[in-house]
Formats: sequence, C-alpha cells, structure tokens
Amino acid sequence: MSSMFNGNISLSIFGESHGAGIGVVIDNLPAGEAIDLDEIQQFLNRRAPGNSDTATARKEGDIPEILSGLYNGKTTGTPLCAVIRNTNQISSDYENIAALRLGHADYTGHVRYKGSNDIRGGGHFSGRLTAPLVFAGAVCGQILKRRGISVNAEILSIGGVKVTGDEQVREIILSAKSKGDSVGGVIKCTATGVPAGIGSPMLDGLENVISRLVFAIPAVKGIEFGTVCDYGSENNDEFYLDGDAVKTRTNNHGGILGGISSGMPIEFTVKIKPTPSISIPQNTVDIAKMQETVMEIKGRHDPCIVPRAVVCVEAAMNIALLSLME
Amino acid sequence: MSSMFNGNISLSIFGESHGAGIGVVIDNLPAGEAIDLDEIQQFLNRRAPGNSDTATARKEGDIPEILSGLYNGKTTGTPLCAVIRNTNQISSDYENIAALRLGHADYTGHVRYKGSNDIRGGGHFSGRLTAPLVFAGAVCGQILKRRGISVNAEILSIGGVKVTGDEQVREIILSAKSKGDSVGGVIKCTATGVPAGIGSPMLDGLENVISRLVFAIPAVKGIEFGTVCDYGSENNDEFYLDGDAVKTRTNNHGGILGGISSGMPIEFTVKIKPTPSISIPQNTVDIAKMQETVMEIKGRHDPCIVPRAVVCVEAAMNIALLSLME
Amino acid sequence: MSSMFNGNISLSIFGESHGAGIGVVIDNLPAGEAIDLDEIQQFLNRRAPGNSDTATARKEGDIPEILSGLYNGKTTGTPLCAVIRNTNQISSDYENIAALRLGHADYTGHVRYKGSNDIRGGGHFSGRLTAPLVFAGAVCGQILKRRGISVNAEILSIGGVKVTGDEQVREIILSAKSKGDSVGGVIKCTATGVPAGIGSPMLDGLENVISRLVFAIPAVKGIEFGTVCDYGSENNDEFYLDGDAVKTRTNNHGGILGGISSGMPIEFTVKIKPTPSISIPQNTVDIAKMQETVMEIKGRHDPCIVPRAVVCVEAAMNIALLSLME
Amino acid sequence: MSSMFNGNISLSIFGESHGAGIGVVIDNLPAGEAIDLDEIQQFLNRRAPGNSDTATARKEGDIPEILSGLYNGKTTGTPLCAVIRNTNQISSDYENIAALRLGHADYTGHVRYKGSNDIRGGGHFSGRLTAPLVFAGAVCGQILKRRGISVNAEILSIGGVKVTGDEQVREIILSAKSKGDSVGGVIKCTATGVPAGIGSPMLDGLENVISRLVFAIPAVKGIEFGTVCDYGSENNDEFYLDGDAVKTRTNNHGGILGGISSGMPIEFTVKIKPTPSISIPQNTVDIAKMQETVMEIKGRHDPCIVPRAVVCVEAAMNIALLSLME
Repeated sequence: MSSMFNGNISLSIFGESHGAGIGVVIDNLPAGEAIDLDEIQQFLNRRAPGNSDTATARKEGDIPEILSGLYNGKTTGTPLCAVIRNTNQISSDYENIAALRLGHADYTGHVRYKGSNDIRGGGHFSGRLTAPLVFAGAVCGQILKRRGISVNAEILSIGGVKVTGDEQVREIILSAKSKGDSVGGVIKCTATGVPAGIGSPMLDGLENVISRLVFAIPAVKGIEFGTVCDYGSENNDEFYLDGDAVKTRTNNHGGILGGISSGMPIEFTVKIKPTPSISIPQNTVDIAKMQETVMEIKGRHDPCIVPRAVVCVEAAMNIALLSLME
Repeated sequence: MSSMFNGNISLSIFGESHGAGIGVVIDNLPAGEAIDLDEIQQFLNRRAPGNSDTATARKEGDIPEILSGLYNGKTTGTPLCAVIRNTNQISSDYENIAALRLGHADYTGHVRYKGSNDIRGGGHFSGRLTAPLVFAGAVCGQILKRRGISVNAEILSIGGVKVTGDEQVREIILSAKSKGDSVGGVIKCTATGVPAGIGSPMLDGLENVISRLVFAIPAVKGIEFGTVCDYGSENNDEFYLDGDAVKTRTNNHGGILGGISSGMPIEFTVKIKPTPSISIPQNTVDIAKMQETVMEIKGRHDPCIVPRAVVCVEAAMNIALLSLME
Repeated sequence: MSSMFNGNISLSIFGESHGAGIGVVIDNLPAGEAIDLDEIQQFLNRRAPGNSDTATARKEGDIPEILSGLYNGKTTGTPLCAVIRNTNQISSDYENIAALRLGHADYTGHVRYKGSNDIRGGGHFSGRLTAPLVFAGAVCGQILKRRGISVNAEILSIGGVKVTGDEQVREIILSAKSKGDSVGGVIKCTATGVPAGIGSPMLDGLENVISRLVFAIPAVKGIEFGTVCDYGSENNDEFYLDGDAVKTRTNNHGGILGGISSGMPIEFTVKIKPTPSISIPQNTVDIAKMQETVMEIKGRHDPCIVPRAVVCVEAAMNIALLSLME
Repeated sequence: MSSMFNGNISLSIFGESHGAGIGVVIDNLPAGEAIDLDEIQQFLNRRAPGNSDTATARKEGDIPEILSGLYNGKTTGTPLCAVIRNTNQISSDYENIAALRLGHADYTGHVRYKGSNDIRGGGHFSGRLTAPLVFAGAVCGQILKRRGISVNAEILSIGGVKVTGDEQVREIILSAKSKGDSVGGVIKCTATGVPAGIGSPMLDGLENVISRLVFAIPAVKGIEFGTVCDYGSENNDEFYLDGDAVKTRTNNHGGILGGISSGMPIEFTVKIKPTPSISIPQNTVDIAKMQETVMEIKGRHDPCIVPRAVVCVEAAMNIALLSLME
C-alpha cells in the first residue's frame, strides 16, 4: 500500500497536490482524548509555506476540516478523518510537464502508474502531502504530551554548515536563493519522557517504525539514531543508578537499545536533500517527445525545504511513538 | 509484531541464541522457483563466525534444515520454513547476566518483557538472529538473480577510515582487538538490474521498506540513500536518453525518486556501531542487586561486526526488493 | 484497526452517521482504470433509503465527492478518497439515547469507547457506514467487469419464507411493518467469470477474505459457501472435461476448494437479522440512570434491511475478489 | 499471505502433510505466561487421528517440539515456534495423484501454484495443518483461562440429525463408514467469561476475526453467530440489570453487538462438510493425461471429520479472542 501505515495507530493518507483535496484517516486512536484544534492549526502552520522569504511564495491554507472521529472536542475512538482542500494551485506552472523535472518523481511515477497518475504539482508525490502527515502528528502529539512525552526537532546544519540560530539558517538559504539554487540540511529530533520498554526487537523496533514514517517525507534521504563513535570503548554508554532509576551517563545509543526505548532521550538525525526545483537551467528529457531538452523551473518553489521539514519530522516521530505505545 | 515483516513476501523470524533453534517462515514466495541449497549455504557461511581472526571464535554451524515449502528442489509457493539448530552455546559465558551489558538490550529487553525473556546470549536480541534473515535473503536473492537483479554490499570504512581492501580492514580490526576494544564501520550496498517503477510513494517506497528491513540487523544505527550534495545544482541528476532508455548522468538519487526505482543502480550506505562487548572493564548496574558494578566481557565476541554484517545487508535488500516486485 | 481492510486492495472507512461526513480511502487500485461515475451512483442508489415503502423514509443523498485518485476519468493508482456528506440527520430522533436500543451497539460501543463515541444515529456503527463500502465495491466492480467477472446478489428468503419475486418480498415486509415489527432474510451472492486459481489456503483464502468483508455489513450474522449436503457421496462434485477446461458437474463446493477458486461460479449465502429498531415497546436499561426502562423506537427505520443489503453484499464481494486478484 | 494471521497475536503456519514437518510461529504473546505442556498435548490429542473407529486409522504423533519463545516454563514474549515432525506418511496412498480427488484442493492448488505445490497427502492444504493451529489455540487458551475465559465446542448435529450424545454421533458415522461414505455436521462453540467491550466495528470485529480464523479449518463451509429469529420482536434481546451488570434476558445476539462483546456468552455454529475422500467410485479427471477417469479413494481417511474438528474450532476461537484482547 503506497500510503498506509499499519501499527497500533494506523494512517491512510490520500490526495494530490492539484486535486480537490488531501487528507488522512487515523484509525484506532484512544477514545476520549481532548484535541485542541487551535494547537493543531499552529502545528500545521509551521509546515505551511508562504510565511517566510526562505520558503515558496505559494499560500496554502492548510486548514483541516475534521469529518469524523471527534465529538464534543474529544476523540471518539473510531476513525478520525481530516480533509484539507486545495485552493491555491496554479496549473500553468506545470504546463511544461512532459519535460521530466530533475530530482522529482515525474519519471518514476510515470513508469509506476503507466502514465495515469496526476502529475500536476507532483500529484500524490508532492511535498504538500506532508500536510496530512503533520495533521496526524499533531493529534498524536497532543495525546503524547498528556503522557509526559515531548518531541522536538531543530535544524542542525544547512548546506553542510552547522548552524546556531535562525538568522544563520536564513542567511545560507537566501544566499542559495539569490543564485537560483537550493540547499539541503540536517534536522535533529529528540523525544523526552518516553518510558523504558517501548518497541520490539528486529522488525518492529523504534528504528524500524520511526524510519518507515520519516521516509514518508519526500526529501528525506538518510536517518541516523544516536551518535555512533568509531570504537566500542567510547561508544558504549555506562549504566548507573539515579535513585531507583537505571540511566546511562552518556547517550550515544540515542535512547534505543535492541529496538526498545531505554528511558533516555530518543535522538536521531535526518538528512534532507536540497529542493530539486531550481531556476538554473538543467538538461533533461521530454518523455512525450522522447527527446532531450533543457529545463528551467519557474514555479514558486522553496529554496530550502529544511525549515518546513522540522515539523514534519516531529509529526512522524509523534505517530511512531503513539503507535508503539498503544 | 516484533519479528514479522509483511509485504508481498512475508517473514516470521523466531528463536533465541541459546534455545533449541532459530529460523524463519517465508510466506508467498513465487511457486516453481529452483533453489540451490549449496549456494544458500555459501551465502550463510559469509555471515557465520569462526572463520576469521577478525570475528568471534565461536563456531556456529548455521546449517539450515528446510521443513516445508521446497519440493523437488523448487519452491512450492506455500510457506517455506527453515530451522537452524543451536549447538555451540556455552552458557557459563552468561553467568554474570544480572550485570547489564553496555550497548546490548539486556536492560530494555528486561523492562519490555517484564523479566521473562531468555537472556542467555542475548536471546531473541542476539546477532545470531540475523542467520534466518540471511537465509531468507539467500532464497530471495536466487529468485532476483534469475530476473537479472544483483545485490552487492562492501565495506566502505572501518573506524572512520575509508578502506580500500580486505587487508586494511583486517589491520584496523586486529588493532582494536589487541586493545580489548571493538570498532564500527560503514557498508555500501548496490543493486543493479532493478527495472524502473518498483516501489511506491510515501509509506511503502523503497526507502521505507529497505530501512525497515536493514534495521532488523541489530548493530545498524543509520542508513542513507544515494549521495546527498549540499546544493540542488550539484545534487540534481540530469536525465538523458540512452537509445530508448531514460537514464541519469550521475546517480546522487541512488536509483530512487519518490520511493520508486528509476532504473539506475540503487545505492545506500549503512552505519554499523562498534560491537558493544569489549574486554575493557566498564561501569554498569546489576539489576538483580540494584547496585552499581564493574563489568568486563569475557565471552568470545567479535571485535568488529562489520565484515559479517555485509551479507546481512545484502540479505535485507534482497528481501525488500523481491517483496516490492512480487 | 476497526475500519481498515488490508489486502492487495486496502480500504480505510471513516465517518459517523450524524457527523460531517462519511467516506473511504481505497489504496493500491490499479492505475489507468476508467471509472464511470453515473454507474457508481446507480450502484449507491440501490443501497440508499427513501426509495421504497419497504425502507426507512429518511432521504440520504449518498452523493460521493471524489477528492483524489481519479484524474481524467481514470484511476491514478494513488489513493482514491470519496466523501459523502451527511445532510438529513434529525438528532431529536436520538434524544432518548441513554436508553440502550436493543440489538444495536449502544451498550457495547459505550463500553468499548469508554462513553466517548458519537452515539447519534449509531455513530460509526450505523448501517449508513455501508455507503462507503458500497462505493468501494462499485469501483472494484467496474474493474472486475472489464476482466469478465460479474457479481450478482439476490434475496433468497424473507422471514423464513423462500421468495420468488419482488412482490412477495414487499408483501412480507409490509406485513411486518404494519405490526410495528421488522423481518430478516437470506441473500445469495454469485460471482461468475472468476478464473481458477484465485485465493490461498488457510488464512487468506476466498472464504476468509469474503467473510471478513461481508461481516462489515452490520446486520449480517451468518455466511455459508456453496451447498453443504449431509453425505460425501452427494456432496462431492464430479470433475469432467469441457474441451480443455476442467469443470464440475454440480457446484456444491460453491466455486471454492481449499480457499481457491475452481473456475465454477462462486456462490455463498448471507443471513441478515431483522432490523432491531421496531416500534413495539421493549424492556431495556437506561445507562445514564442505571435503571430499567421501556423503549419504543420512533425514528424512521427500515422494517427490513435485506433489500438494501443486497448491493452491500455485492460490494463486499467485489472488493474481496479484486483484492485477491491484484 | 496464505498462512499468516496478523492481529495483536500473529501466526505464521507452515508445512506440508508429507514434508519434513509442520508448525507455527506465534508472535507477540504476552511475556511471563506459564504454559503447561501436558495440557497442550491433551488438547492436541483431541485432534489427533488414530484414537477412534470413527476416524482415520493413521497414527499421527502430533508431538510438538518448542524451538523458541518458552523459557523456564513461561513465555518469553518473543516469537514462540513449535514444530511437529511428520512420521507416519505412506506415499503410496497418493500414487494415483494425477487423478483429481473430488472436494479437495488438488485442482485449485495445481492451478494456483502452477503445478509446483507438494501434493502428497494434500500438501499444505491437508487437514493435518490444523495441528499447528490447534497448538497455537492451546497456548492462547491457557492464557485466556487465567483471565477467566473458557471456550467450549460440541457437536450439534451429524448428517442433519441433531445429536444428544457421543454414542449417537458414533452410530451415524459408523453407518456412513460401512457404506464407504462420509458425513458432515454442525459444531457449536461457546465462550464464557469474555468481558464486554472486546472487538471493533466494521472490519475488525469479533465476527470478522473469528470467521477469518475458523475458515482456516479446511472442511468449514459456514459460520453463524448467535441465533437469528425471523422477526425483530422475537430476535431482540431485552436488556436488564443484574446488580450493577447490564445483561440480556435472551442471547440471540450470541454475545456480539456491533462486532463487540456484550459480556453475554459468545455463541456461534460452524458447518462442516462431509469428508470428500470416500471409497465409493466417482468420476473425475486425470490432469496429467487430461482425460476423464474413475477414482476410488483407498487411503485411510476419516468417515467424518466433525469429532476431530471440535477442538480446531475451540483453537481458532481461543486465538481470535486473545488477539482481540491483547
């Protein structure tokens, strides 16, 4: 299934960038959990474009309508469906579509779906499909918070440069933008308050589930858990007793041993590739005419997806954690 | 489910390091596929310890008995089960078991299974459980080969040093071993011959499925697909026509765009942590007595798991690919 | 997961009877399949109430809006989501809700969801939730038809009386209705054109998958495949050759042997209970006051659900077949 | 997947009747549950043939070896695998195998697996494959028992005759046997002690899950939950208060409303077809020669599978219940 996640919490994500709408069904949420819609909107706004000169100028409302699963402000326990209407599409941006955009799924989607997929704006492959993922993550995050669990992500580096603040991020991105180029980066995510004992060995551990969900974010190309030192003597984290609690003095294991949480903060980093849509002309192939051509992307695109991806990573982690804890 | 993989090919892996045996059930294999048992044994031997001074001196036969699913040398199409008996356990190595081994799942497994899991030799968390994974990968690999697909992994670096040959690998490992230490490394895996169009967007793409399976290998802490350059202008791979075939001039995308194969070689790297069992004394906690203690691992352990993990990565990739292609 | 079906075709059904809307996401449909929306509407109309004096007088438009997965009249291959808005709810019908309606899920849903589920109109338990199932079945049915497969259901008996035509059905139902009572019945479903070899032994066979989907229809209490004779000598269907084709002279096996289609018509019957909502006063319990009470259902309810369930059974069968054939 | 069940408890069943062995992996069992192996053996013995003149004379040891998942007499929480060796096969019974046995999966399995499946003794389609199902049911049953839940099945009718005791069952079966014929019947299963609130609406309810598992028993052709009366006025079960407990005065709903347990006993009946292997000559097709032929089954077969199926139905129910309760 392309767009389903089956855990103790299950997701079914749908929609195309320029279709009627996108959304998600979340199944098996615990019943009776209060959901704060304003807080969800704030979470979604962190992903939405149009808020900064470091992102695309497209305005996407990203205002979800909840069709089911919420009653008197609380989860019903039956499937929760949210729909976000598409309202700001400019199809002319995609007229030149037979020319394969580099770094996008134009070619692979064409082959996979035998030319029948909706290619406008990337269709189901669009980064816009992270909006329902973020919605689901917002819902899960509110439930986790009530259980004392907090998930936070932040930018670690942009364009290979370790960054220390938003201003430095902005500077590197605007520099790339001014050249018609784009830039990638690394995001670090930390979850605190996760009790020991969550997850399983082998195929349903924290690494398996988190990575499966994080790779749902289109630009993600890598993930690494904890900090891997070269030698065992430096990599091993010594156990000690903090009162009755077993803890480790360092946290190179990133809060996960054998796929299961240790009670220490869960930490991982995610590598995001530079946005493939750049305004510098590049060679490509026109698959309608089957001839080589030159392409220059003129649409409104993000010079860097990293700032908007931060909340996507948090969302993926929220879903992974709640699913493994239910 | 801790040890099941559900795709078009499904796995159910079982066993504990010091129990009666370990094994795997593979469901939904295509029927009528000839399986060469000698070739499977050679594949398994690449994982088996006791073959080199860079690995543990334990001898594990790793000789699978096929209980079902194979008839007249061909797959029946019904579930194939293989069992590998455990024969070379030395339980005295694990007498001191209440002291938590650093970097292992002793503590997290204890919490997860409320103290009921079999801890001898790591139990179900043992690296030995990669043997059934490798068996399944060997079976899938033979089927893929007949379809023109070849998966190969190799060591890229050991202890942070990019290596160029087996001798260099051995040197670094023996140096760590001589100090009672262990060392980690990076493995690169490449699949050639995969046609374009395999995989799906979002949650069932190549990255999602490969990462889920690769993280079944206990020591894996990170995975990265393709090569991520800092800027879009260098990261984008230009399309061109090679006769009728659409190809890219570079392969930074690692053969995957939008979760789907592009027809270019699929490439990813896997980061392996240094073996946590080292003979240097380290501080830990005795959970039976709930007091701090010092631990020195005396068992026969690998100073470096990387050489033996190479075939595990190939196996995980074989399973991922066949599952997505069936 | 309460409302997901995971096969080669997957469903995620959502909605509550009196919420904003109900719907379904269908994942992994084959790409490029033309979908005739008028035909879908006709299929849905067969389920819709308000069309006959044998059914509830409620008017439910059941007009689906397709949000995704359809482009230029063809499936895209990515998830297809359809939403049906709720428009004709009369909440006052359900004011007396603390009194448990007999035969409904008022009590069990209350316990299952700790009192948080939306109980208006039965919420997610409502028969109205068969509308998205029927929608999905309509889509699958059009694809099956193109492959030469036809699924047809019909009423076999009402109130224990074998019926021979619509008029007889109507007569029995109106007789029950006139007494404030309701009546059940039996539906027979037949699929023709299914090639031999579809399905699997044990847990993923035709019977397993069909029954799982048919029991999604709330009033279904039983299912039986083929015709079971008492003795083997009469029950066995003799094989013969019809040209090159292997056929059976009789079809007691209902087209299924070992969970797999034989090429003969697939036949099964479904037992539907009488609608529990009747206007005759009956004893029940008020769970708010925790005291016994008498209840008389005054809402607009079906005296017999069987005629409307016919298309639901066809839909469930369409989904089962396409899922096993993809 | 032909032979996997994925719930909160998951199964992977493997084996062929005349291969090396059959067995099952049970994943996600709760950890720390004491398992009484003698009791398991007694449960298995109820299924085993060779114990009565109403069953086949074949002796099948059905002695499981537990390879993993059990340590110090308790479940470890990691996958439990049991293997039963095949020891009493007489292959000559199946020499005439190209002639399709009526009522078996010889033809459908041949088509499904392109002629590569192991047909000796029915291969993976053999009734013998219920042994691992029964093993899994025995394990689940012991855990349920500790939670106050008891599952019991009994024969309701044989050959269309409602039976009142074992002697009557034996008489009808021996009468059929004396004519070289076989006979079917109906089994009733009852679970007591199941708390209210177990199960889910639509696709993961008690009916869906129980039926999916019960249809894993090869001879089962139908299932019906509770007792369906023709009219609502007689079918509805009135609620009343028994102290603090909500109960129903009758139990036509069979303990299930909306897919969820009501706290009343769960009741269902299962229809078993007569064993297809009879010694009366019948017409069939030889698929090797592609010509019609006459077949007379000479192997040691059950004149009635119903007595041995009783424990299989209990096992399927045990698995369904524990899976929905974990």
